[in-house]
Amino acid sequence: MELTRSQLADALSDPLLDAMNFLNEVAMRFPDAISFAAGRPDERFAGLEDAEEDLRRYRAHLMESSGGDERAVIGRLFSYGPAKGMINDLVARYLRVDEGIETGPESLVVTVGAQEGMVLVLRALRRESTDVALAVAPTYAGFTGAARIVGMPVLPVASGPDGVDFDDLRRVAARARADGLRPRCLYVIPDFANPTGLCLPVADRHRLIEVGAEQGLLLIEDNPYGTYVAHGERLPTLKALDRGGQVVYLGSFAKTVMPGARVGFVVADQPVTDGGRRIGRLADELAKIKSMVTVNTSAVGQAVVGGRLLAHDCSLVRANERVAAVYRDNLDRMLRGLEARFGGRPDLSWTSPNGGFFITVRVPFRADEALLEHSARRHRILWTPMSQFYPGSDSGARSLRLSCSALYPDQIDTGLDRLAALVAEQSAPLSA
Amino acid sequence: MELTRSQLADALSDPLLDAMNFLNEVAMRFPDAISFAAGRPDERFAGLEDAEEDLRRYRAHLMESSGGDERAVIGRLFSYGPAKGMINDLVARYLRVDEGIETGPESLVVTVGAQEGMVLVLRALRRESTDVALAVAPTYAGFTGAARIVGMPVLPVASGPDGVDFDDLRRVAARARADGLRPRCLYVIPDFANPTGLCLPVADRHRLIEVGAEQGLLLIEDNPYGTYVAHGERLPTLKALDRGGQVVYLGSFAKTVMPGARVGFVVADQPVTDGGRRIGRLADELAKIKSMVTVNTSAVGQAVVGGRLLAHDCSLVRANERVAAVYRDNLDRMLRGLEARFGGRPDLSWTSPNGGFFITVRVPFRADEALLEHSARRHRILWTPMSQFYPGSDSGARSLRLSCSALYPDQIDTGLDRLAALVAEQSAPLSA
Repeated sequence: MELTRSQLADALSDPLLDAMNFLNEVAMRFPDAISFAAGRPDERFAGLEDAEEDLRRYRAHLMESSGGDERAVIGRLFSYGPAKGMINDLVARYLRVDEGIETGPESLVVTVGAQEGMVLVLRALRRESTDVALAVAPTYAGFTGAARIVGMPVLPVASGPDGVDFDDLRRVAARARADGLRPRCLYVIPDFANPTGLCLPVADRHRLIEVGAEQGLLLIEDNPYGTYVAHGERLPTLKALDRGGQVVYLGSFAKTVMPGARVGFVVADQPVTDGGRRIGRLADELAKIKSMVTVNTSAVGQAVVGGRLLAHDCSLVRANERVAAVYRDNLDRMLRGLEARFGGRPDLSWTSPNGGFFITVRVPFRADEALLEHSARRHRILWTPMSQFYPGSDSGARSLRLSCSALYPDQIDTGLDRLAALVAEQSAPLSA
Repeated sequence: MELTRSQLADALSDPLLDAMNFLNEVAMRFPDAISFAAGRPDERFAGLEDAEEDLRRYRAHLMESSGGDERAVIGRLFSYGPAKGMINDLVARYLRVDEGIETGPESLVVTVGAQEGMVLVLRALRRESTDVALAVAPTYAGFTGAARIVGMPVLPVASGPDGVDFDDLRRVAARARADGLRPRCLYVIPDFANPTGLCLPVADRHRLIEVGAEQGLLLIEDNPYGTYVAHGERLPTLKALDRGGQVVYLGSFAKTVMPGARVGFVVADQPVTDGGRRIGRLADELAKIKSMVTVNTSAVGQAVVGGRLLAHDCSLVRANERVAAVYRDNLDRMLRGLEARFGGRPDLSWTSPNGGFFITVRVPFRADEALLEHSARRHRILWTPMSQFYPGSDSGARSLRLSCSALYPDQIDTGLDRLAALVAEQSAPLSA
């Protein structure tokens, strides 16, 4: 039976999905290129037997807490588990220790990465075809993709210089309502956003919670990079400042334990009522949806994360001290390297993040897929065109995202030299 | 921020989700009851260190196949992986060895259990609000739930005595078209269906593929139990008989490796065209959706399944010989026990499966949630009301599903005695 794309989900014809495919494909075709594209964690301190050791540690913990009941432990690791998760107690401790978030295990849903968390939250909020999500633009493509999957349009809100343009936020929400739409939520990465690296100031965090309440918007706070502050103090998460349940918090262990575990979580402590009666928390509703999407998160994956948490008294800041120093040094080296090569040029500028994996660079030419392919082939460097973070708009046409998370110093230096060559080539007046 | 259920997804108000929640809750409130409810695999041969050993074996395999490149192996286990999966080659071998299905790794998507597979296939097929799925009724509740999540109505097709009532199938499809709907697929469990235990005869398998082609229906074949034939020969799967790509096959390792890995897969070899040009396979489209739902399936979970496959030359029939004998003996004992207690009663009948985990029993009283609660409290047995397999209909009101997969012989005997007491109590004329 042959299928035509016109018979399949609209979302599959979305340029976004093709764009992400294209990026993977380019990376595979040019494996020797220096990659400023991949936003993945560094593996240099990962060991071959890490997963097994984590698993063993969590198993020992279960044995101890069950009083040595071997069959009970096998039941936990081997079998189906609760849709909400198995390691919620450890995750709640981690949130208290590292993030200053006070929440109970019952408000948590352990998910197959933060990606599934986005799908669950959006699916729960998507009731009518008029329901829409707002997202600070540029927007992480995974969020846009999740919204496509659940059939919820995403309206961009300008980030401005500091992370959220509040005037634009109010304007976008008002215009949506005037168009008969229902803005339900705002997606934001307050700490070292993907792709800009911007970090929302504390005063703006307080203000965002107020504006969220004023506008009836659930704030979806995604925080994959907050652990990796380069210099100075970490800022409190929105969720740590949240007193009225305005914030749903998406957590990821991909950058702090390992992507291969595919474990993230959602904090959703909002009370849910039905006919005036309280029937539970938003987490319970998300778990019901989860039971129909993935049943539950892999017990093995959860055990790996649980074991890692146990090894470090539930502090992933402590667990990642060495790799955090790598990220800090890489970021510093990148920023110094950009300054050395492009400093003073009026036609080129970049963000100066204080942490995380990403820098956004504005360039004086179109940085599109065709140029990426040329860049990979001719200059042997990969980067990410910003267009995928501005779906349906031309705003990102002359920007690119550089990631420096998983590189060695000489790769950064060589990569930036190659970037300079690309920039010189593209900025040069056309010759006959 | 308080949320009301009327602001949340319709699907969350579906009685099906509440029903499944209720079943879990009853099971938790009466942990000492004998459970004919849980359709889970038996754990008696599972060992504490199984997952670690499987992981170690797969790791050794990667080391060997990469020529001892430790960093490459860490990259595979630690990092993000392809959306389509990491162990596709081993899964393809398993399909050839155990299932007689010839397919290449490129036609496979490794999923977070078969549940995610259902979501991906339905989401890919769901283009317009008029798209509908057909499903042989009674229908596994996970399929109905997945369809709710993607917003696709499910139309039931009678199973008849053998598994599929072909007249009803044509009737339902024709009526749907007359109503302006587009029937896109038919969900069916040909081997030891959940909940009836029915097994589709070979002639009907051939016929189903023909009728699927005639009606333009993709057949979604779900096969979690096929490994566990009690007596005689296994029948070929639909996919093994499929020459024209009519069948999408959903596989699960939950019953053959361990539920805790949360690994399943989809075989989707259908060509997809766009404007007459072939652009890939359905598996590629499913992978694109998957990248927005869960990114990829846990490498750790995949490694556990990969390690288990390697340990048994990719035959899970061989790997499960001991537990298959347990399932066979349990099923035989259940059927003999039902005959001994209820044989000859005209008001009570049951299916006689030749494999799998489930038996359906028709009883002369309403077997609903209230009775289940009473049964758990008073008689200390759990079972599953059939209503959840007939959403929106009263067809299952006087039937219950018994599972015998994870019980010891004395539990079966005692459980059936208790069931007999429940039946006697419910069948007795009401006294004043």
